[in-house]
Amino acid sequence: MTEVRTLKVALLGCGNVGAQVARILIEDADALAARTGARLELSGIAVRNVNAKRDVELPQELFTTDADTLVKDADLVIELMGGIEPARSLILTAIQNGACVVTGNKALLAQDGPTLYEEADKAGVQLSYEAAVAGAIPILRPIRDSLSGDRITRVLGIVNGTTNFILDQMDSTGAQFADALAEAQRLGYAEADPTADVEGHDAAAKAAILASLAFHTRFALENVHCEGISNVSAADIAAAKDAGFVIKLLAIAEKLTDADGGEGVSVRVHPTLLPREHPLAAVRGAFNAVFIEAENAGELMFYGQGAGGTPTASAILGDLISAARRLVLGGPGRTETTTGHVPALPIDAALTSYYIGLDVADQPGVLAKIARLFADHGVSIEIMRQTIHRDAESNVETAELRIVTHRASEAALAATVEAVKGLDVINSVTSVLRVEGV
Amino acid sequence: MTEVRTLKVALLGCGNVGAQVARILIEDADALAARTGARLELSGIAVRNVNAKRDVELPQELFTTDADTLVKDADLVIELMGGIEPARSLILTAIQNGACVVTGNKALLAQDGPTLYEEADKAGVQLSYEAAVAGAIPILRPIRDSLSGDRITRVLGIVNGTTNFILDQMDSTGAQFADALAEAQRLGYAEADPTADVEGHDAAAKAAILASLAFHTRFALENVHCEGISNVSAADIAAAKDAGFVIKLLAIAEKLTDADGGEGVSVRVHPTLLPREHPLAAVRGAFNAVFIEAENAGELMFYGQGAGGTPTASAILGDLISAARRLVLGGPGRTETTTGHVPALPIDAALTSYYIGLDVADQPGVLAKIARLFADHGVSIEIMRQTIHRDAESNVETAELRIVTHRASEAALAATVEAVKGLDVINSVTSVLRVEGV
Repeated sequence: MTEVRTLKVALLGCGNVGAQVARILIEDADALAARTGARLELSGIAVRNVNAKRDVELPQELFTTDADTLVKDADLVIELMGGIEPARSLILTAIQNGACVVTGNKALLAQDGPTLYEEADKAGVQLSYEAAVAGAIPILRPIRDSLSGDRITRVLGIVNGTTNFILDQMDSTGAQFADALAEAQRLGYAEADPTADVEGHDAAAKAAILASLAFHTRFALENVHCEGISNVSAADIAAAKDAGFVIKLLAIAEKLTDADGGEGVSVRVHPTLLPREHPLAAVRGAFNAVFIEAENAGELMFYGQGAGGTPTASAILGDLISAARRLVLGGPGRTETTTGHVPALPIDAALTSYYIGLDVADQPGVLAKIARLFADHGVSIEIMRQTIHRDAESNVETAELRIVTHRASEAALAATVEAVKGLDVINSVTSVLRVEGV
Repeated sequence: MTEVRTLKVALLGCGNVGAQVARILIEDADALAARTGARLELSGIAVRNVNAKRDVELPQELFTTDADTLVKDADLVIELMGGIEPARSLILTAIQNGACVVTGNKALLAQDGPTLYEEADKAGVQLSYEAAVAGAIPILRPIRDSLSGDRITRVLGIVNGTTNFILDQMDSTGAQFADALAEAQRLGYAEADPTADVEGHDAAAKAAILASLAFHTRFALENVHCEGISNVSAADIAAAKDAGFVIKLLAIAEKLTDADGGEGVSVRVHPTLLPREHPLAAVRGAFNAVFIEAENAGELMFYGQGAGGTPTASAILGDLISAARRLVLGGPGRTETTTGHVPALPIDAALTSYYIGLDVADQPGVLAKIARLFADHGVSIEIMRQTIHRDAESNVETAELRIVTHRASEAALAATVEAVKGLDVINSVTSVLRVEGV
């Protein structure tokens, strides 16, 4: 038998995902060694409290509070601590020591990815982060490698399971946001403080990472326009349903060309109406999916579990083995290419359709007045539908008007909505939501 | 400016896909060079007839009939001739000359893949074939790399667009197979001789490739049990629809453990009932999708265009750039791992559910008789539903019985169906179809 090399693996953090990674490294050691061509030896697990209770039973002697020493002695470092520091410093130490790094830390990557990628390039080591976006779904590698000969034009992602679960609950049961959130918390799909999920911050970090890879340009969190779902009402969902749409929180990155032929990328997160027959509309519960449009490949979709200890561990292990195989074979790791240099566009430059719900006076000439106002703002109307409700007791009639526009600039749409509010025939603007996939 | 290296790319074949590959290599030369770190120079296109009419206008001086000379002078060879020879010999020549090879030739890989992989390993060059399965959909790379730390338990694939189009037509319009096939031919989704598609041979070659990667073991075409869709009737589709199912031609590869703990892989292609809410059920028209179940990742699905010149060219270019980046960086290419060595199982060992449609005598005790027969064969019934039809004129009653079984061995199910045919209360067995996803 030939001697098989051993690679030392340092694990930083032992939460939900980390504990599963440690379990798999120990339980599947033989199978992983066969696939890698080297034994992956878990050399230690850095935690804050070595005596804390874990989800998985693991050998006590692996635990240490001395992350720094652990990292300096490792060939491969898995960072699952989350947050900015000390994760950032430990990753830089690992890179400078020539170790390959695997991380799932989307917040750190969205904030400080460029520095980390650059340091990894300089050191000739791999920095992999498949687990940072859409958990178990292989999405970053397909974008980076499989689509490297194509031009991606648009990415639409359901990349936050908590908000997809809440919106799906609202859609299927008619629940209000607060009740659906409470149900998500009860089932463990939402945290006690759900802000990062429901306000779209988590999705925004993932949008920055997706946009960077899709358009070969580094985008940071500050380039992402972000709106959450806490203002989406049961009435919005019901009206969307009635019109053949479903509401999803989408992370969107798309290339736009302005009138002068200048190119830019609009990166944004917001609640979005999708036609019910769109492939993303069928993504239910806490599942994630990323829909990609590319010039040559056409439409692609990647679907799976976006969170959870075991599914996310699968993505971490995939990155780990790819890095380990490279160490075994020798030769430098692949580097990120950022050859695009397309500017990030402000939200006003985004091109989108609007769905607008209006409570209007039921009198002749109202529709003409509203249509003229849209035309004056250069916004073209695709669908306009009026429904009259008559209260059985009072006999009072109210009119509800639903408008879906053609694609127009966000700035023109926002100006139109402002102007609509000033019309004397408008009682109230009941909802304004963006539409994709039409 | 630093000197950029040039890599010579030889293209073998200039059909639908080849012409698009050539076009992209020429049109996008600058963008591809930026992403690769080297210029990809199309050094020639080997064809049988240099004067044949092409889909795309390409420089006449690129065409040659001397494939051998072209290959011997190339750094990268793209083989899109199809068929076994001369494709096989040219690929071996390329490998022996140290060139990386990209191919979409599923027939060759299914028949002779092991020899080619071995030669590529020995020579330290990459042999890539993403385009051979599910066209534009990145599926092989995710299985090989992203899921390398996981254990795939099952792969269900819609990997033939022609048959998916035909079945979708039958499902949505109620058409018979022959009419749906004629429509597919009229629209260019089926060839004049549709045998390879409708009899499942194309899907079987892809099943062998998917199974080999998913289970780290080399499976050949002879390991794949194959049934096509030419016997699927409009009545089968209607009955399935009525029971909440859709019929798809699936390529299936799944790991099974027998009573003694021995493991094996069942690889098969056959028309299959899927519940309408299954993610694969929503794959319409000529689209492809591959659904994967893995121990840690859970359920994943990859969706997109499975054929067509431009989409398939996207997959070819992705492989080409990955191989070229490796040449630029230096170091050996990755090699295939075949560490599994799990045996291929015969179709009799497959575990599946059956849907059985029976035309039975409408008399007391029939259901009990049939149920007893199933129990005697060790097959458990999940759903049994009887519908009585009364002919308005003749007043004659006929009874239709539909049975869905629990999972049982193919051998037990086949024996049960044989025995059912012998029962005196059975007029005819109207359909026998396998069921997945329940």
